[in-house]
This record gives sequence, structure tokens and C-alpha cells, in this order.
Amino acid sequence: MSARGGIDLGGTKIQTVVVDEDNRVLGQARRATPLKGGPQDVAEAMAAALRDAAAEAGVEPRELTGVGVGSPGAIDASAGSVGQARNLPDWEGVFPLAAALTDALEGVPVRLGNDVSVATDAEVALGAGRDARSLLGVFWGTGVGGGVVLEGRTWDGEGAAGEIGHMVVKQGGARCPCGRRGCLEAYAGRGAMEARARRRHQEGEKTDLFHLMRKHDRPRLTSGIWARALAHGDKLAIELVDEAVEALGTGVASAVNLLDVQVVIIGGGLGLRLGEEYRARIADAMMPHLFNDDRPPDVRLAALGDLGGAIGAALLVA
Amino acid sequence: MSARGGIDLGGTKIQTVVVDEDNRVLGQARRATPLKGGPQDVAEAMAAALRDAAAEAGVEPRELTGVGVGSPGAIDASAGSVGQARNLPDWEGVFPLAAALTDALEGVPVRLGNDVSVATDAEVALGAGRDARSLLGVFWGTGVGGGVVLEGRTWDGEGAAGEIGHMVVKQGGARCPCGRRGCLEAYAGRGAMEARARRRHQEGEKTDLFHLMRKHDRPRLTSGIWARALAHGDKLAIELVDEAVEALGTGVASAVNLLDVQVVIIGGGLGLRLGEEYRARIADAMMPHLFNDDRPPDVRLAALGDLGGAIGAALLVA
Repeated sequence: MSARGGIDLGGTKIQTVVVDEDNRVLGQARRATPLKGGPQDVAEAMAAALRDAAAEAGVEPRELTGVGVGSPGAIDASAGSVGQARNLPDWEGVFPLAAALTDALEGVPVRLGNDVSVATDAEVALGAGRDARSLLGVFWGTGVGGGVVLEGRTWDGEGAAGEIGHMVVKQGGARCPCGRRGCLEAYAGRGAMEARARRRHQEGEKTDLFHLMRKHDRPRLTSGIWARALAHGDKLAIELVDEAVEALGTGVASAVNLLDVQVVIIGGGLGLRLGEEYRARIADAMMPHLFNDDRPPDVRLAALGDLGGAIGAALLVA
Repeated sequence: MSARGGIDLGGTKIQTVVVDEDNRVLGQARRATPLKGGPQDVAEAMAAALRDAAAEAGVEPRELTGVGVGSPGAIDASAGSVGQARNLPDWEGVFPLAAALTDALEGVPVRLGNDVSVATDAEVALGAGRDARSLLGVFWGTGVGGGVVLEGRTWDGEGAAGEIGHMVVKQGGARCPCGRRGCLEAYAGRGAMEARARRRHQEGEKTDLFHLMRKHDRPRLTSGIWARALAHGDKLAIELVDEAVEALGTGVASAVNLLDVQVVIIGGGLGLRLGEEYRARIADAMMPHLFNDDRPPDVRLAALGDLGGAIGAALLVA
């Protein structure tokens, strides 16, 4: 039996899988992403999480034929390095992540890819996009990532296509974590939503969001905290999520007007946690902006769920 | 010698060319698009304009090996029909344009294509996009049309990609001629700009725009009228064109963030008339919104000028 590893490196958590030849998940593990330290600490946490998944699968890490990594930041796949990973601790510079992981995993070959691209590729190969001629993957999490797949292949452009989160939905609008104004992510990114909630709470607005965060011992407003606050009818949470849905509908419709893709796949931590109800709400929010509203694209939830990124990473070494 | 015809059917004018095997222009002609009547009247004006171009080229229309047409509206190339051409008189239904032209041109085969696609294809084959791996054509005229070319081929999506004019630049923004809100075209389309100028003029704002229009005997605010008003320092014209440039910068940057194309080509009646100065201003207006602003795309003017659409149409029968 030949087994491979996959690591999805996120700003909040590290998700790992070990899969077999048919991409069936034999083992999986999850760890919190270190909030302090630097790239080497993150690499060690990644290796530890992969060892956990291998243990669950009943294989030794050194028996893996390879390990793929889906990472944020600027990936240089041939050099095996990652730079400018702003959601990770002290990771502005370029770090040789592939070599660090190979060291930590007893010599296993490691291949790097972009986190959003590998998650999109996984949905195309194994998930909700298997039958699609063209699709847009929309990953609604800390940020809003996008993957463009045309005729079955990821479109990278000059190396960095898919920044749907930084399409402008409102000229002169809210400040985005990227520093620009009016980006989709400024309204729909969980990071921007938390910053806005915190500011309004500090200004005296009532909300249970931060109470729930402390009660569940979370360092930030996770997707689960947002879902709980919505379920409790928290007014501020409802308002901010409504704004996010509106912005997603606008931005995704703009992208569809440009590309006329057949399928839109909604994934990401918040997208998956809020699930079917919000998939339908995003599809509805697109309608007023779709140029061809007589044949809207098919809006689907990512089928591989939370493991999609890690499974897609494992496809890098298939 | 084998010659071909090309017809660019616009809401304001009909431009025709006759070209040789090397796509050199042997003859050209231009007529105003009929503002009244119906599709048959438009077809007759198109045939007359093509006869003029053939006469200038010294060939008989029946000697042409084919005539291509770039048309607005919903094109069915295999049926040879055009429907929903809203900028043309009484053309909501489906009209067999190819057959009507073949009849009027003594049996010459006619092939239809989308006006924006053929203009984009012409720039790729013969103009400013010859060396580009990927590009976005932006046609700034009565509306704002877009052409997406990836790896040398036009991307049509499910049949209607490229609607950059209906990407949203401002959620909840100005009403667009398409009926939606906040589209790029609501700020940058010459049709929408004229409607706004007219409203503000009627509300008492000073402007020379309509005086210039009457003086030059134009039925509407043509690109030339806008250019003259700008040259005169007309405040309302300057303000509305500034808004258009701002919206173009925002919308085109959004498209580039999604697709990361190498080249952007600015064409269309207004784009070509305002020329290099405004090309540079649009490129500047993109900068605050570009995610990868360290390597912006190369923004170029369409090289084939006013004839690009007609030459591109002639490529349909090459």
C-alpha cells in the first residue's frame, strides 16, 4: 500500500490527512496554528500534526511516498519556500518550508502549493466540481480566497490569479486588512468581521460574540462562535453576517459576469460552518447583480468539507 | 486576389472594411446607424456601407469571399441570427441578419460574431495584444464591453463571458442602463454619462455639452463632443469623465485581481478618442485596487483604432 500525506496550513489551524492510492482518508489530525514564534515553530507543529495523522492511519511517516502542503503566502514550489505569509507568526520573509518539513519527517519528499488552489483542485478532482466545465471556488474564512478553474484546469494568470477577496465591491468603502478600500474581504473576511465587531462592541454596542469566545476558550471569533451567536439571535452578529453575505453575492456575481462559469463552490471555514442555509442566501444575493440572471450558475457547497484543503494538498504528491 | 468584408455594427455608427489576404484595409466606409425603423432597415444600411467600402477597394461585393459581422445583442452564429440588440431600433426579437445581408449582397456568405469578441480577437491577431499570454480588452463606448483572452484564446464561458461593464464597482450605487445598480457601466458608459449630464443640466447645472452637440449637429453626446467639452474645461464634463475613469480603474483592477492577466487593452469610441492621456489615467486609477501592485498589468491602447471592430469581423471569414 502506498500512502501520502496532506497538510492544510491555515491561520487558525493545521489540518492533516494521510490518504491511500484512491485518496481515501486513512487518518487525520488537527492542531492549532502557533500564534507566536516563527516559521520553524509552525513547521514543527505541522510535522507533529502529520505524525498524528500517520499514527491514526497506522503508517510510519517515513513510509509516506510524499507529503503535500497547501500554504498561504507567496509559494515558490520549485524552491520549496514560502514568503509573505501575513496570517502566520513572524513570517514576512522567505522560509524553506519544504526542507524544514522533510527534515522533521525523516526524509519524506515535500511539495508545496497554494492553499486555495489545492482546495479548489480537490473539489474539482474529488468533490463538488467533478462534472463542471468551469468553476469558481470561493473560500469564506479568515480571508476570502478564490480559485478559478477553466476547462478543468486552474487558471493562475501571471502567478496570482483568484484574488476574489480583493475584488472591489464598494468604491471608497470599508478598509480591508490588505490596506485597500472596499474589497470583498473588507466585508466578508472573518478577520475583518471580528475587527468590526470588536470596534462596535468597544463603542458600547451589545453583543454576545466576545462572551461566547471566552466561554468556549477561543483566542478569536472562530466560525463556530459566529454560528453560535447567529443561533442565539445576536443582533450585531446577524448584521455583520448579513453584510458579508451581501458583499459575497455582489463580488461573486461580478466574477461570474466576467467569466460566465458554470458552477460556484462555497467553502472555507465560515462557508462550511454556516452551510446550506447560507449557500442559498449567497446564491440569492448574487441575483440582483447577475447579468445573465435567467441562467445563474449552480452554487454548491464544497463537498469535501473541512478536509478538502488537506486532501488537495495530498494530491500535489499523487 | 481574394478580398473579404467586415462590418462593425454599433449603436451609433456602422463601420465597414474590405481587406486583402494579409488583412490590409483596401477600402472602408462609415454610416450612421438608423435610429428609426427596424432590423431590416439596419441590415440595408449595413449592406450599403459595405458596398461603399467595396467601391473604395475596387471590388464588386459579389467578388468578396465572405463578410463577417461584429454585432451587439445575443448572437446565434450557427443560425445567423441576432436578438435582444437593445441599442438598435426595435430589435428586441430575433432577426435573421446573416440571411438578410446575403440577400442584399448578391449571395455573399455572411458570418456573425459578438462585437466585443471580434474587436478583441483583432487586437490579439493584429494589434496591441499580439505578444500577450493573457489579456483583458476593455471597450469604453456607449456601454463598457469586455473581452477575456487566456492563452491566446477568447474565453466565452457558458456563452456570455466578458461583461466587465456589469461588474459591480459600488454596491447600492448608481442605476445602470441595464436596470441594475452600481455596475461599472453606470459610471463609465457613454449612454449613462449622457443621461446623468442631461439630468444635471436640466436641474440647472451649467455645461457646454449640449450646446456643442447641437452646434456639431449630433443626435447625442458622441465621444468627439465629450473630448471637445474636456478641451474647453467644461466642469460637468470633467467631473463625469473623472468619475468614469475612477470606475474603470476600480472595475478593471477587480478583474485583474481575479484573472492576473498580463495585458489590458483600452479601446472603444471614448477610449480611443480620449487616447493616451486617459489610458495613463485609467492605469493610475487601477493602482489603489491592484492586489499585486508591484507588477501591474501593461495597459495599452487598442492599436487598430476605430477600424478594429470591422477588421476583427473580417477575421470571422478568414
